[in-house]
Amino acid sequence: MSVNLPPLPEMHPVAGVRCAAVAAGVRKPGRRDLVLFELAPGSTAAAMFTRNRFCAAPVQLAKRHLETTAPRYLLINTGNANAGTGADGMAAALRCCSAAAELAGVELEAILPYSTGVIGEPLPSERIVAALPQAFAGLAADAWADAAHGILTTDTAAKGVSLRSDAGWVMTGISKGAGMIRPDMATMLAFIATDAAVSAPVLDALLKEAVEASFNRITVDGDTSTNDAVTLVATGAAGSPTITAVDSAQGRAFAAALEATCVQLAQAIVRDGEGATRFVTVRIEGARNRAEALAVAYAIAHSPLVKTALFAGDPNWGRLLAAIGRAGIDDLDVTGVDLFLDDVRIAVAGSVAPEYREADGARVMAQPEILIRAHLGRGDATETVWTTDLSYDYVKINAEYRS
Amino acid sequence: MSVNLPPLPEMHPVAGVRCAAVAAGVRKPGRRDLVLFELAPGSTAAAMFTRNRFCAAPVQLAKRHLETTAPRYLLINTGNANAGTGADGMAAALRCCSAAAELAGVELEAILPYSTGVIGEPLPSERIVAALPQAFAGLAADAWADAAHGILTTDTAAKGVSLRSDAGWVMTGISKGAGMIRPDMATMLAFIATDAAVSAPVLDALLKEAVEASFNRITVDGDTSTNDAVTLVATGAAGSPTITAVDSAQGRAFAAALEATCVQLAQAIVRDGEGATRFVTVRIEGARNRAEALAVAYAIAHSPLVKTALFAGDPNWGRLLAAIGRAGIDDLDVTGVDLFLDDVRIAVAGSVAPEYREADGARVMAQPEILIRAHLGRGDATETVWTTDLSYDYVKINAEYRS
Repeated sequence: MSVNLPPLPEMHPVAGVRCAAVAAGVRKPGRRDLVLFELAPGSTAAAMFTRNRFCAAPVQLAKRHLETTAPRYLLINTGNANAGTGADGMAAALRCCSAAAELAGVELEAILPYSTGVIGEPLPSERIVAALPQAFAGLAADAWADAAHGILTTDTAAKGVSLRSDAGWVMTGISKGAGMIRPDMATMLAFIATDAAVSAPVLDALLKEAVEASFNRITVDGDTSTNDAVTLVATGAAGSPTITAVDSAQGRAFAAALEATCVQLAQAIVRDGEGATRFVTVRIEGARNRAEALAVAYAIAHSPLVKTALFAGDPNWGRLLAAIGRAGIDDLDVTGVDLFLDDVRIAVAGSVAPEYREADGARVMAQPEILIRAHLGRGDATETVWTTDLSYDYVKINAEYRS
Repeated sequence: MSVNLPPLPEMHPVAGVRCAAVAAGVRKPGRRDLVLFELAPGSTAAAMFTRNRFCAAPVQLAKRHLETTAPRYLLINTGNANAGTGADGMAAALRCCSAAAELAGVELEAILPYSTGVIGEPLPSERIVAALPQAFAGLAADAWADAAHGILTTDTAAKGVSLRSDAGWVMTGISKGAGMIRPDMATMLAFIATDAAVSAPVLDALLKEAVEASFNRITVDGDTSTNDAVTLVATGAAGSPTITAVDSAQGRAFAAALEATCVQLAQAIVRDGEGATRFVTVRIEGARNRAEALAVAYAIAHSPLVKTALFAGDPNWGRLLAAIGRAGIDDLDVTGVDLFLDDVRIAVAGSVAPEYREADGARVMAQPEILIRAHLGRGDATETVWTTDLSYDYVKINAEYRS
């Protein structure tokens, strides 16, 4: 199940980008599990990868290739993460890339590989190589919806965003993932393309900013996968002027569109979170700085006790205060802390609010979407994270995954 | 349910200590919910309290009293945590202490209060005050088992340790708690007494050491309660020579007994953890320092994905590697990491071990007690933590607690 996950919108083609999704039989036959993106020459690209030290072979290889040259093709397989696979895994990733490079007539480094799926099993690179000709033959500008489905693993639905800017360019993106790490299905991927023209340094800077405000603000279970990656491509094929400064009017418009796209794609992952029955926004205000606001937000968002109360629809504010109190702010004055569920004030100055009635809290907690808001009374910094509850189904999905 | 939780042993009386457990009707009638300890004059005491900033009124008061004078009485109620209760809560705690002080004919500061139970409800101090005469009348040297039962909340069984040293002194202790924080039942308490004579500074230093190796190495759900406290009392009534140095032979023997007692009491809390079906030891070896060993151990022990795999008995080593990889060691060389389940080597140099067979991992994971051991290949530091799995019952207990 999922929480208010929007259906895939009309996915506008992005000039200079074609894609295809085919069935390579990586793990199971008959399922589209190989996605290929083709990017026009002259495209700029930026990417951010998992910070997990056990990052997968394709992550290591994609990073290395990106340092060398601008990518022309993105090659994504599901069903196998090619992680924890050592030197053999790196060789398998290289085989896939070099087969694709040969078919495309480009250098090896122009291919970026992505894998998601079971950890620790050898990547059946021969199946991927065998399916490549069909993928190349199927490349089409209007296949974004196919690609959105093709990158899914145990997600319940495809996730996509597509918009047209006033400046004449299009931005279309897809994401997958249903936990920060899936059991063995390792995990979150997002691909965003635009036909705006954006210089590489600006693209890089804007992606960092947007990811910080979106993919780096979601959590289902606090785990970080070995394969997470977000990739942004700008083909420039729309013919609009090249954006060369973050702080220009065009740069700001692009940044806003990019952040909105990333936030929607990131929230879609939370809405489709494992066993999710609630979509929860945790906003911490009045912190001394953003780092402490974030620490408190994550203490709440990761607390199993808060998450089980959310599942139960129980306005158990003691658990919220306890999570705030253990978030690592050593000089927190609890008499400065106010706590709200949506519009309902639960606690004021660190104690239960005099006007608070359990029925008011229960009303908010019964909603599918809930805002938990705390004001720390220490300064002006604010941070927001998005998360889900912890349900029987979370345990079921993760306990039974391999059985 | 619980995992190999030992029954309460013979609880040796501690010369100079008497206790009683009576029913005050704090939350429910007919349940022993008020425990009183009497300590002989001249006893030394040391205590450690929760670091949660939202610490409860009794915690604040007990700290203050301890700074003033040596305690003569410990007064513990269950059913109500007197946390999140503001100035009224502090007044209620003071009322209980001052009634006890009057009955005992001691100064107010000689009473240390402890509360555990529901957060955010007013403490019914009048019921506690009314039950005090019965508690004083019931004080007995051989009532430790009653006290062990009297401090429980939603624990499934009483937890105690008792030993006689070669030097002629006794050490007896009790604990309660079944999660690092119970839903509203806030949480872990331990009381340990000895009739050894120990100087106050030595008692303090040894308690810190022992707690660091025991109560500070357990986790059920990563939450820290508002009421946690560990209290150690030495009456000196056994007549053995006063221990005045940590590094003396007597000091070391006492320290070893204290650590063993604390470890057993702490492990008992994990064995009785909410919904626990496994008792799991996580040992990290070969770390550069203890801090990073501990960070990795907790990353594993807190990972919902590791914990659900433990519940399922699934040797899902990808989740273990992923947890190690995200533990915050930025320069971790994954090719130095070996991983074991008990005696079974799962991964070597960061990849699956060539001799590893899934059946071997599954055999270990089917056990009620499991050792997860990782060697980081970075140095000589080792740390150990104890935890449980994440089961349907954990969600059930915490989701349904107030319904």
